Amino acid sequence: MSEQPTPGSGVANIGVTGMAVMGSNLARNLASREGNTVAIHNRTTAKAHRVAEEHPEAGFVVAETMADFAASLARPRTAVIMVKAGAPTDAVINELTEVFEPGDIIVDGGNADFHDTIRREAELREKGFVFVGCGISGGEEGALKGPSLMPGGSAEGYRTLGPILETIAARAGEDDSPCVTHVGTDGAGHFVKMVHNGIEYADMQLIGEAYDLLRRVLGYEPAKIAEVFAEWNTGDLNSYLIEITAEVLRQTDPRGGDEPLIDKVLDAAGAKGTGSWTVQNALDLGVPVSGIAEAVFARSLSSDPERRAVGQKLPGPERSVWIEDPHVFINEVRDSLYAAKIIAYAQGFDEIVAGAKKYGWDINLGEIARIWRAGCIIRAGFLDQITAAYVEHPDLITLLEAPVFSEALTKAQQGWRRVVATAVYSGVPTPALSTSLAYYDALRSPRLPAALTQLQRDFFGAHTYRRIDDEGSFHTLWSADRSEVSEG
Amino acid sequence: MSEQPTPGSGVANIGVTGMAVMGSNLARNLASREGNTVAIHNRTTAKAHRVAEEHPEAGFVVAETMADFAASLARPRTAVIMVKAGAPTDAVINELTEVFEPGDIIVDGGNADFHDTIRREAELREKGFVFVGCGISGGEEGALKGPSLMPGGSAEGYRTLGPILETIAARAGEDDSPCVTHVGTDGAGHFVKMVHNGIEYADMQLIGEAYDLLRRVLGYEPAKIAEVFAEWNTGDLNSYLIEITAEVLRQTDPRGGDEPLIDKVLDAAGAKGTGSWTVQNALDLGVPVSGIAEAVFARSLSSDPERRAVGQKLPGPERSVWIEDPHVFINEVRDSLYAAKIIAYAQGFDEIVAGAKKYGWDINLGEIARIWRAGCIIRAGFLDQITAAYVEHPDLITLLEAPVFSEALTKAQQGWRRVVATAVYSGVPTPALSTSLAYYDALRSPRLPAALTQLQRDFFGAHTYRRIDDEGSFHTLWSADRSEVSEG
Repeated sequence: MSEQPTPGSGVANIGVTGMAVMGSNLARNLASREGNTVAIHNRTTAKAHRVAEEHPEAGFVVAETMADFAASLARPRTAVIMVKAGAPTDAVINELTEVFEPGDIIVDGGNADFHDTIRREAELREKGFVFVGCGISGGEEGALKGPSLMPGGSAEGYRTLGPILETIAARAGEDDSPCVTHVGTDGAGHFVKMVHNGIEYADMQLIGEAYDLLRRVLGYEPAKIAEVFAEWNTGDLNSYLIEITAEVLRQTDPRGGDEPLIDKVLDAAGAKGTGSWTVQNALDLGVPVSGIAEAVFARSLSSDPERRAVGQKLPGPERSVWIEDPHVFINEVRDSLYAAKIIAYAQGFDEIVAGAKKYGWDINLGEIARIWRAGCIIRAGFLDQITAAYVEHPDLITLLEAPVFSEALTKAQQGWRRVVATAVYSGVPTPALSTSLAYYDALRSPRLPAALTQLQRDFFGAHTYRRIDDEGSFHTLWSADRSEVSEG
Repeated sequence: MSEQPTPGSGVANIGVTGMAVMGSNLARNLASREGNTVAIHNRTTAKAHRVAEEHPEAGFVVAETMADFAASLARPRTAVIMVKAGAPTDAVINELTEVFEPGDIIVDGGNADFHDTIRREAELREKGFVFVGCGISGGEEGALKGPSLMPGGSAEGYRTLGPILETIAARAGEDDSPCVTHVGTDGAGHFVKMVHNGIEYADMQLIGEAYDLLRRVLGYEPAKIAEVFAEWNTGDLNSYLIEITAEVLRQTDPRGGDEPLIDKVLDAAGAKGTGSWTVQNALDLGVPVSGIAEAVFARSLSSDPERRAVGQKLPGPERSVWIEDPHVFINEVRDSLYAAKIIAYAQGFDEIVAGAKKYGWDINLGEIARIWRAGCIIRAGFLDQITAAYVEHPDLITLLEAPVFSEALTKAQQGWRRVVATAVYSGVPTPALSTSLAYYDALRSPRLPAALTQLQRDFFGAHTYRRIDDEGSFHTLWSADRSEVSEG
């Protein structure tokens, strides 16, 4: 018990409460940086002691109670909450406010719904506390070695907290800059973390579809497809997810034998909900995020054995598609994957823009791409290009407008069409690749059938329509003489 | 003022408060049925008087105040609220509870969020009132002449209310049965109405895509496409929406000239939000409703002039697709539209099943299809087949399992592939036709790339996976010796 402080001594400059693996790893990361003394706390005290014993090099200050925890921290106190989102987070916040003092900084490092973060920030600000909702990406390893950090809250809070976060964040780029920035006020950090996760869903689904095409259309074995992905990882697609895809496909069954592990694994993908949140909020904001939505739906469909059993009875294509040159096809799949990935990111950034507008956040989009370059699951070479695009043109209406991306789409589009058509003729489902191409074509279309939709709405519900040659709203008297009336 | 009652006289057997067009039309519909005396009320009293004056045949009892309204109704009082969803509905409910008595029936005929209906029903039941959230479909004309009605609430409430609703509902089928049924308890009616609207979005989007294909691939003019739709309306696709599509496409500019109206209308489709709700709730329930989602996204994309302006600079296909026989293509588009419509309805019914399970509703799916056969926007011949399918097999896992629909899909699937591929090669966006086919192919696929997704999740987040050859959850030690460990 020697490391336990006398109440009031305040030796630690930061504390972490919640010693599950993410919390203990983050605490260890903090403790490993020069100048930090880290207090740790856990509801079940034994767990905090165990973490301290297992990692003596961290020099943790173990707090047995919340009062101890408060006493162990120098003022202004800075504490990171690493517990489950929802009610458990509210409970810990309430406990902290009882022992902390105005001016102290409370950080929620969990996967909170940003609406909760907005509410909590307002409540705590009212009481004089500084509250920071901080998205943390990179999983257990990121938390330990360097995550991508997305803190929201006040600029004032970031002045104290930022320098600490900068020491533990992942680093990327030629300037080795830390993957953290002040995202925006109140819930901005958790909002951006949510969209990050949504993009991750789309990215993973697109990779899955590319794999499926090489597997089912070309008949390649996983090990051979691993080589293709490893090769792709040296080009535009260079990214953590492509890299681990090669690793996963290369893996034989750990139980022995030569068979690929993937063929032994149940094809049912789980989800923890942030993908759904991303789509639900995009719907609130009126932003099409079809790539992310298809990815979320694909996971839920995969986990529905009953309906899939019914589906087995439905017929597929009458014959398979003959691919003349596999290498040409592989390159087209690669370019399609890259094009669809650009669309998924463009849609995600559209959602960030719409969210910033609705909730009053001043979000620097180039900075968001910059802090995703390392530490997080979607880290990828092409984030540098997104940053560069926003630095050059901060007011891009869509990422697709940036020359580097419009050129990639231009290069890809013809092959992308062949790939989607091949999938369709082969009976291989590629919902994310297909919807991205449909989005591309819809954006391109000078006229959309939405004019018909709007006239149908006018017909059955008098919802009115606008004209291309006049200002105002109009209604055709469909059930009467079919003249047109102006509706203000 | 002669029609105004002495307080307490209670001459009316039903009342309607909220005299906007839906409310006044519903009141007129009620008043036109034998045995009904209808009290009407509006916040601005003048409006209620004007409705009564304009429709003397209705014999309305005009109530100036809520107290008058209560006094004008026979006990147990039955009042239908026809005001805006949200806070206005709560306000009117509060006013009614002040003047009504336990045992009285309060009906919300607005487009309420079913979560609100669940809450209100519990609160009002607590106070002794009978509360019925009732979905009403069919727009203004439906309200007046016969809507499709989806009442929730208690079975007890339906015993009093049902016979009145049955008199005003649309009628369909050989037995001329009223399009109303007791959907389920508390929010079931508004939930089903929400899904109805979601399906409507999908249906309209699919029709738009079919139109766009005939327009842009075949180069047909709207009037010629109107003929195609009129022809389709005589077959499997027979429905109100197909019928009015022909009407709309046939329509020339009401301002004169020979040009089709559709070409003068801005191609930006509006939305009132229930489509988004349907998708958001499907995400909560883990049900893929990709057809509905794509329809919602297509509307929001169409209404985004800034991003569409950017899109105009992106290149399309290098050459157009040559269609050898337009009639073959038209028939394939027809069959694709029907197939995709079956998928959209199947997904919508899946959502109803999942909602019923989560919220404890006993919903008869065949009854739902039955009450949609007339009065509402998605009324269609094929709803008879859905009813028949559920009558024959009440426990269908998916609609696609019913022979009548699996046969339609079997017949359509080869042409459906050609249609989607043609769209893709032509640069015509068909997100809903495409996603429905991808859903079909995903259901059919013996193996999905979800196994790869799950292994990626295991790699970066230790999320574990299941195996096809063993029970339990497993994790590969990716960063260590890559052995496999069991995770309970």
